[in-house]
Amino acid sequence: MRIALLGGTGDIGEGLTLRFARDTDHELLVGSRDPEKARDAVDDYKAELDSHAVDDPDISGFDNEMAADRADVTILSVPPYYAGDTVDAIDGVLDADTILVTPAVGMKGDEDGMHYHPPGAGSVSELVAQRAPDEVPVIGAFHNLAAGKLADLSAELDLDTLLVGDDDSAKETVRSLASEIDGLRALDAGPLANAAEVESVTPLVINIAKHNDELHDVGVKWV
Amino acid sequence: MRIALLGGTGDIGEGLTLRFARDTDHELLVGSRDPEKARDAVDDYKAELDSHAVDDPDISGFDNEMAADRADVTILSVPPYYAGDTVDAIDGVLDADTILVTPAVGMKGDEDGMHYHPPGAGSVSELVAQRAPDEVPVIGAFHNLAAGKLADLSAELDLDTLLVGDDDSAKETVRSLASEIDGLRALDAGPLANAAEVESVTPLVINIAKHNDELHDVGVKWV
Repeated sequence: MRIALLGGTGDIGEGLTLRFARDTDHELLVGSRDPEKARDAVDDYKAELDSHAVDDPDISGFDNEMAADRADVTILSVPPYYAGDTVDAIDGVLDADTILVTPAVGMKGDEDGMHYHPPGAGSVSELVAQRAPDEVPVIGAFHNLAAGKLADLSAELDLDTLLVGDDDSAKETVRSLASEIDGLRALDAGPLANAAEVESVTPLVINIAKHNDELHDVGVKWV
Repeated sequence: MRIALLGGTGDIGEGLTLRFARDTDHELLVGSRDPEKARDAVDDYKAELDSHAVDDPDISGFDNEMAADRADVTILSVPPYYAGDTVDAIDGVLDADTILVTPAVGMKGDEDGMHYHPPGAGSVSELVAQRAPDEVPVIGAFHNLAAGKLADLSAELDLDTLLVGDDDSAKETVRSLASEIDGLRALDAGPLANAAEVESVTPLVINIAKHNDELHDVGVKWV
């Protein structure tokens, strides 16, 4: 399978790229608005993977549109305020055969902590679904993972990620893909309309990390 | 310590009463708007505890105000739409020495699932703090526990509960109290202003339970 990681030079993109490269055989297409930046990041990821004895990973760098054009699954690992514009920038290459996956979460910090701050659509997942062509299946996933831990290949994961989406077949594809990452379990949280409750766990894990010394890179298990 | 469980005849009140009765030596005051109903519930709880070999538990039934008047910690285990009125009904007996604990969550269900539906104050925890006299410490806790599992003393818990509150000493008292329940760990999620993200996990666990067969009574661990 070909997986595009748009915004793949950012922190969640880095972690997902490294984990997919180590734990799966999928072809990884790192995307950025600037293809040079994508290729530089790929060089860094290859060096990091080499230091973890992962030989010859199948990763290359492209601009976002070119990465999405070639992909079966396109992960929008961009900041939440770029999610809509990134969809617009690639919508010419999206179709019913490309699953769009969105891990971004709108948040706002103040002196008390981080707070969930969704766009007018109700959640970033629903915003992405509104902006994408109607026939494109949109799945929310990979929201509540600590980026630092994800990108640290020496850290063992024992975490869950939640999926939301209205297309059961696309959701099953993403569930299966997420489960290929060692130590990650993917659970179904229902349709896209349930995305806000999933996304709002992300500011919560940041607050928990801040207030509990032993939980620096905290994630979640549903038990 | 004396613990009042207002609305202690409801499902979360039942579970907390049974667990506190079995796992701690605190005096438990089950409150209801109707003291007869509270006393009937206490009879049921004693029978249930007896069937789990818990002898002579220290539980009695009162109307809500009388229970709160005698308590060091008062848990508002009432439905979210009664939380404010319940505070108003007992505010003559509340003072700086009574910690008010609120586990209620505003939710709304539709065909997609359960959704977080906070009151205008931003969260039930903040609503309770607004309605209580200024000097009363308010702590949000016990939000994300499956009531059925909590009330089933044969079920082993291995769960976390999150605390929010602005009074560190009251929060520490509730943390310590919660930790006396076998298998329950209490973590700090920061000030009351962070309550919405904590409360919104409750509709999320209901959605996860609905969509994943193996997670009928699901709760959460922050790991």
